[in-house]
Amino acid sequence: MRKLFKKIIKNSRSPEDGIFFEKITKILGFKPLNLRYYRKAFTHRSSNKQDDNGNPFNYERLEFLGDAMLGSVIAAHLYNEVPTGDEGYLTKMRSKIVSREHLNELGRDFNLIQFVESKVNPQHFGENIHGNIFEAFIGAIYLDRGFPFCEKFIYDKVIEPYVDIPKLEGKVISYKSLVIEWCQKEKKQFNFDVFDDTGIEEQKYFGVKLTIDQKIVAKGRATSKKKAEEKAAKRAYFALQEKIDKK
Amino acid sequence: MRKLFKKIIKNSRSPEDGIFFEKITKILGFKPLNLRYYRKAFTHRSSNKQDDNGNPFNYERLEFLGDAMLGSVIAAHLYNEVPTGDEGYLTKMRSKIVSREHLNELGRDFNLIQFVESKVNPQHFGENIHGNIFEAFIGAIYLDRGFPFCEKFIYDKVIEPYVDIPKLEGKVISYKSLVIEWCQKEKKQFNFDVFDDTGIEEQKYFGVKLTIDQKIVAKGRATSKKKAEEKAAKRAYFALQEKIDKK
Repeated sequence: MRKLFKKIIKNSRSPEDGIFFEKITKILGFKPLNLRYYRKAFTHRSSNKQDDNGNPFNYERLEFLGDAMLGSVIAAHLYNEVPTGDEGYLTKMRSKIVSREHLNELGRDFNLIQFVESKVNPQHFGENIHGNIFEAFIGAIYLDRGFPFCEKFIYDKVIEPYVDIPKLEGKVISYKSLVIEWCQKEKKQFNFDVFDDTGIEEQKYFGVKLTIDQKIVAKGRATSKKKAEEKAAKRAYFALQEKIDKK
Repeated sequence: MRKLFKKIIKNSRSPEDGIFFEKITKILGFKPLNLRYYRKAFTHRSSNKQDDNGNPFNYERLEFLGDAMLGSVIAAHLYNEVPTGDEGYLTKMRSKIVSREHLNELGRDFNLIQFVESKVNPQHFGENIHGNIFEAFIGAIYLDRGFPFCEKFIYDKVIEPYVDIPKLEGKVISYKSLVIEWCQKEKKQFNFDVFDDTGIEEQKYFGVKLTIDQKIVAKGRATSKKKAEEKAAKRAYFALQEKIDKK
């Protein structure tokens, strides 16, 4: 049983915790209750920390937990979303979604590495550190707020912006090219313009707007210009879906 | 979003459904809301059934879902239960718990095969049918009642009676032999007696009581005499734990 009251008491914060709390809240979209889980999710074994019982205090066990939670939420999503997909299809699609590459992308996009506590420079850990701490972060959410919040985070911040079933199926390679094709066929003028370019060095954001025949049809915001264009194109594609032949 | 009201309406039952409802309620320990999920969990592909949208109506997709739910609940249990276990340990222990053999045992003990709808005699499916429909059953619980009930079922009906961490670690091979050793060392008389032997042919139950020095110290009930003895011994072991040296 989660002892909410106890947690709130424990949750009295230092100024440093205050900044951490704000940043984590922004990523989560809701408030964390016990920051200690998130601290753990970002503590590398090289820091040699231990908890009060002398057990290692680092993210490795949380990775295991986060991986399991991610697996079950993605499984339920695919089950509901693709009623025609058999067991083999569902298994394959889930592997694609939780691939090392994709988890690394997620960790990188959330810029979780800024939080890592370690004796070694985190830049030296290689690519997989991003995916590993992303999984650990999911595990921390589960421990801190339970399954429903963990599920909500995965839906809002992972599935909605990142999981694109037609693309994963290889049916749609790029929404940008679909939109361009359609514009060319329909003899419409189009433009992808970067209108925003913000964020600190380690976490840049690009805003891109897509204009078709002088009308802004969609906007996208992401950590690279290419991704932001693709997001805008995807939104435009779904907005224009009735006009564009899916085939 | 689950539409509870709609489900209750849909849930009007035939007499046959009534029996199915009672049996499922007994296994679950709570009431199912929509029997259709459970029907699906027990429908073999050989029955060639389809749902209203023309999609195959059988348990194969539910297996995928149940496997994922089982995986995440067991992961959380192990994470909390064994704070000293590293990622490798947790992964290995979970594999043992959700091994094909263990899932088959669970399916068999719940006698889920009695519900199977199929064109082929279920006896011809081989051992794995038991584990497969057990996983599908877990998937059905998730769809019917959501994660908290699914979690509750797994804790109450799988983890509590079946998951024995010291045994899985290989530290305890048999509680029966631990109890016998202790009795011999302490020069105490002991007896394992079958006092009950009930159930229909396909689902027999054995009740075993363990007597030490003319006093009944524990009882066990299971689908085989050996298992019932082990259950009784395990209970006795924990009851006598202060007296028995664990080493």
